[in-house]
Amino acid sequence: MNWYLQSGNEADVAISTRIRLARNVNGFTFALKKDGEREKLEDKIKEAIFSVGYGLQFLRLKDMDDMTKMSLVEKHLISPDFALNKNETGSILINEEENICIMIGEEDHLRIQVFSSGLDLENTMNLAVELDEKLGNLLGYSISKKYGYLTSCPSNVGTGLRASVMLHLPALSMTGNDKKILETLSGIGVVVRGGYGENSEVEGQIYQISNYQTLGVSEKDIVQNLKVIVEQVMKQERQARKFLTKDAITLEDKIYRSYGILTNARKISTQETMKLLSMVKLGTDLGILPQMTDAKMKELYLYTKPANLQKYKQEQYEVIERDIKRAEIIKQIIEKN
Amino acid sequence: MNWYLQSGNEADVAISTRIRLARNVNGFTFALKKDGEREKLEDKIKEAIFSVGYGLQFLRLKDMDDMTKMSLVEKHLISPDFALNKNETGSILINEEENICIMIGEEDHLRIQVFSSGLDLENTMNLAVELDEKLGNLLGYSISKKYGYLTSCPSNVGTGLRASVMLHLPALSMTGNDKKILETLSGIGVVVRGGYGENSEVEGQIYQISNYQTLGVSEKDIVQNLKVIVEQVMKQERQARKFLTKDAITLEDKIYRSYGILTNARKISTQETMKLLSMVKLGTDLGILPQMTDAKMKELYLYTKPANLQKYKQEQYEVIERDIKRAEIIKQIIEKN
Repeated sequence: MNWYLQSGNEADVAISTRIRLARNVNGFTFALKKDGEREKLEDKIKEAIFSVGYGLQFLRLKDMDDMTKMSLVEKHLISPDFALNKNETGSILINEEENICIMIGEEDHLRIQVFSSGLDLENTMNLAVELDEKLGNLLGYSISKKYGYLTSCPSNVGTGLRASVMLHLPALSMTGNDKKILETLSGIGVVVRGGYGENSEVEGQIYQISNYQTLGVSEKDIVQNLKVIVEQVMKQERQARKFLTKDAITLEDKIYRSYGILTNARKISTQETMKLLSMVKLGTDLGILPQMTDAKMKELYLYTKPANLQKYKQEQYEVIERDIKRAEIIKQIIEKN
Repeated sequence: MNWYLQSGNEADVAISTRIRLARNVNGFTFALKKDGEREKLEDKIKEAIFSVGYGLQFLRLKDMDDMTKMSLVEKHLISPDFALNKNETGSILINEEENICIMIGEEDHLRIQVFSSGLDLENTMNLAVELDEKLGNLLGYSISKKYGYLTSCPSNVGTGLRASVMLHLPALSMTGNDKKILETLSGIGVVVRGGYGENSEVEGQIYQISNYQTLGVSEKDIVQNLKVIVEQVMKQERQARKFLTKDAITLEDKIYRSYGILTNARKISTQETMKLLSMVKLGTDLGILPQMTDAKMKELYLYTKPANLQKYKQEQYEVIERDIKRAEIIKQIIEKN
């Protein structure tokens, strides 16, 4: 099963964990400017993946239709900029479960990404390190003795590591504590953003928390520090939920109204869906909506997004029609056994 | 069955018909100012009702609790002013079906009222006339040869007749045509008001349309004129509905979202209920909500009002608790077979 449809640890608050390592290969310019250089690097990588294993497949962006690319973006497997790149020069290495997705020719030669459902920093990190070592041995990375891994953008120099966790924080938001707590976090070495990374807005009360520093600190410390902070935020979210359940009827009212609209609408936008799903997920996680399951929530989050909706229905739709199909899919997913 | 729970003619648009006759009894001052005069009039009326028939019962307002009085107001059987009168000097004559309710000591000595579900001006008028003749023979009305029936307020002199029809006009409202059409009506001898008469606001897109003139025009002409106008408005409402069904998905979306909130809310105010019921009634009348029936709609309109809600549950509730009980009753009525 694809990692994003699985149920992970601490699934009531933690949605997913991602480890990303920025790597560049020795002997190639950082921006791959020379003629034929990109092709040479790709050949080298394609050759390497057989000995690396993990069932990785090499796919060029230019061989994918727009819907497939957007579907990868919606799953958080590739960055929006990478998908929208007009030259379509990028490619990816991806496995069946889709928990490994390496972007080739994004900002750096390689962006090794490993994903897990829920909160699972250690295992995700271990797999990323294992993969990174194998690739490093085969490709030869660009490393400075003084700084560590060299990257395209100085903000990634050193470990090249970005560890991030997506958290669903509806209760902190409903009690008006989200801004205060998340501002505090920015002061202690982590970045809080929307679900699609840099410059993306927070939708459906889903926040991405990741490390800020990559230089002069060990991988282990980065992950450990992030883990402590994430656990602290999760604790506060759970406390806020406990507080909200004191006025059970008001909370249930909000949750059930969202559920009622979601299951009865005949057309619905992505944005409204995200807002309503947030309340329905809260109800599911608090056991207020016994008819819902974590597995259904995962499907709802995935298949209500524009590209994956069309992948699910195996048809292309105009925007307005998409809102109608989205309403149908929601009912289908919720009502199935 | 009480008249307001029955299904009437043209029930898709017409909610109810009311005929009201203002009458005063010879030999009593209009405001019943003299000592013992009220009691004397009451005795005379009590004596008369046995020969009148119709199973009429005499009830004093001061013998009723507030909830019972408010329940009568919510059913439109007595006026809010009459119920709220602090001296509690009024009384009523009412039958089991509650389609006859005569207010004694409201603005006039007698306000004879006859009600029907749906649009039924002729039959309602016939019963009112029959009742009026019997009472007139027994009590002796105050009549001027020149003007007709004399009343407390000059606006009622002549026929003392107010014929009114309650119409549900959601489509005219949704297409933005309600104001224009209803303003036109004011120019042709009818008054458009909210459901609770004078100075009441339009709630849930229910409008009361009644005659304006009572003097110098026959009862027959008043009723005939109102009927023509009401039929015209109903026609326009049905045309507006037809227009809305051209964009079926948008209409269904609005109706089903209202239904979804109504059946899922855990607490809900009277005002929001009226707004949502309006859409659900439209869906029921258009056959869009097959799970709903006219009978259920009638119950929903009645038992979601504050006093009748408490009568239904046979318990008294605080305002906040009432919103919770209202949500329960709605689910109960909708889900029962």
